[in-house]
Amino acid sequence: MAVYTDLSDEELTTLLADYDLGAALSFKGIAEGVENSNFLLETEKGRFILTVYEKRVARADLPFFMDVTETLANKGFPAPRPMRRKDGALLSEVRGKACALIAFLRGVSPKKPNVAQCRAIGETLAQMHVALEGFSGARDNSLGPSAWAPLIEPRYALAETLRAGLAADVEADLHDVARAWPNGLPRGVIHADLFPDNSLFLGDAISGAIDFYFACTDLLAYDLAVCLNAWCFEPRGAYNITKGQHLIAGYQSLRPLSAEERDALPILSRGAALRFFATRLADWAETPPGALVRPKDPLEYADKLAFHRTATGAADYGA
Amino acid sequence: MAVYTDLSDEELTTLLADYDLGAALSFKGIAEGVENSNFLLETEKGRFILTVYEKRVARADLPFFMDVTETLANKGFPAPRPMRRKDGALLSEVRGKACALIAFLRGVSPKKPNVAQCRAIGETLAQMHVALEGFSGARDNSLGPSAWAPLIEPRYALAETLRAGLAADVEADLHDVARAWPNGLPRGVIHADLFPDNSLFLGDAISGAIDFYFACTDLLAYDLAVCLNAWCFEPRGAYNITKGQHLIAGYQSLRPLSAEERDALPILSRGAALRFFATRLADWAETPPGALVRPKDPLEYADKLAFHRTATGAADYGA
Repeated sequence: MAVYTDLSDEELTTLLADYDLGAALSFKGIAEGVENSNFLLETEKGRFILTVYEKRVARADLPFFMDVTETLANKGFPAPRPMRRKDGALLSEVRGKACALIAFLRGVSPKKPNVAQCRAIGETLAQMHVALEGFSGARDNSLGPSAWAPLIEPRYALAETLRAGLAADVEADLHDVARAWPNGLPRGVIHADLFPDNSLFLGDAISGAIDFYFACTDLLAYDLAVCLNAWCFEPRGAYNITKGQHLIAGYQSLRPLSAEERDALPILSRGAALRFFATRLADWAETPPGALVRPKDPLEYADKLAFHRTATGAADYGA
Repeated sequence: MAVYTDLSDEELTTLLADYDLGAALSFKGIAEGVENSNFLLETEKGRFILTVYEKRVARADLPFFMDVTETLANKGFPAPRPMRRKDGALLSEVRGKACALIAFLRGVSPKKPNVAQCRAIGETLAQMHVALEGFSGARDNSLGPSAWAPLIEPRYALAETLRAGLAADVEADLHDVARAWPNGLPRGVIHADLFPDNSLFLGDAISGAIDFYFACTDLLAYDLAVCLNAWCFEPRGAYNITKGQHLIAGYQSLRPLSAEERDALPILSRGAALRFFATRLADWAETPPGALVRPKDPLEYADKLAFHRTATGAADYGA
């Protein structure tokens, strides 16, 4: 929720001269995304999001993200199409920063997804995995399992201040996940961050899946585990198995899980919870007291880890 | 530039049930306005701005602001029409705060207005003054001349730290303005804050004048003086007399100034600069070092005051 780069009308006119989108009709910074500056732009040709990439997105990764998003849009997946410049490029530059113009998608992000929306996001995730089968690009998951211990271990003391006993619990999580991680499962391009914030709905029908800036090559079932964490919990770490059943059923309607993938859901879900706990703990550590933008609460994921620790099999998730 | 109130999709649906605008198609917080939370809302009936009024806008004043804005829209002035609820009311409530749905206007705010845009804003200001002749409502200017000394005098020490000698200069400004203020000039409803930020243009044609939350009953020519300060200076307090000529000529094309109003332009302009210096100085004093949102620079208006001090007559402004 920020606009770091404040573009003038003149800079916008210069930028638009490189596209076939006509002149600007309106232009407003939007309070969305913590990684980038985003603007809602209307031109004579339609509505677009202008994203200016700030420091947290590696410039070298942008062509992969753009390629994934455009490929999905070409295949009828509800991803927002990046617009090509007159010279064919997908990326431009303003103030020394990379930027892109991306088609605007209608829809509203649900704060408390319902069961029908959980089914829809499961279908959408599978649709993405199927659409990207055979995709030629690849990107390592920089927030995969090997990244979690380095983010968490130096901050055990902070974790203890947040909740007594948490450091030992999370140390056990890291140990168990490292030992049991199912590296041999089917791989492909995953979204890796398909939270309600990154989805758009018109009623219960999905109208968009956005923000492919964590997309990478990793286990497909891990992406499902990320969604189970993001969509199927009620407050205080209470897993809503009805939502889980619908999300998993929606996924399997387009891409049935193998027996190995199904059996791995508990450890994948525990790993996915560790991944978000790890980055939230690090963000918490870096935020000075009294800062205007409050970081997301790491304890939300500590609560979810507590559920995953007690799960005995895929049936506990609704699979 | 802030969104203080973050509404959920469910709260939005509840709010829209009180209007005849159909269901939400998209909803995004926008980084605009420091006083209120603003959202760009698209429904089945069109596009709207949802404004949630935060603490700085007095609730008792909202009916006046809404009435002014709707009256202007009814008279063909490019103000954004506030939408009436099914029960006829212009204001709603969310989370215990007042809010309103206001028609979306196209256009882009100029960062560096050109001469043609200065003429257009002069015409627009006069169009507003004429359209509101005989308007029945009234509101005292809470940031009128009597408010300036109480905002500035306790902060002379701060003013000195910003620029040596500034306290004595501003003390003289306050003295001269209090002595020479032309209280007898024609009065009416003024915008009082018609900065480039609060204007929308499509090319050089004005498409909107927005944010009537400082509107009040005061000298009409003072409103023109606010615009001369806001639109006709180049960096470092250099007055651009060509812009001033066009802005004043645009104004006079619809509402000619009386001789008394014309003669008063230097003192009115000096007072208008004091008004913005005063609130910027107070905001500066209240902002802790290292705050994420940097306040606007009081010295921009100290520079403008230096010009006004040397002006000898209306001709120096292009009148």
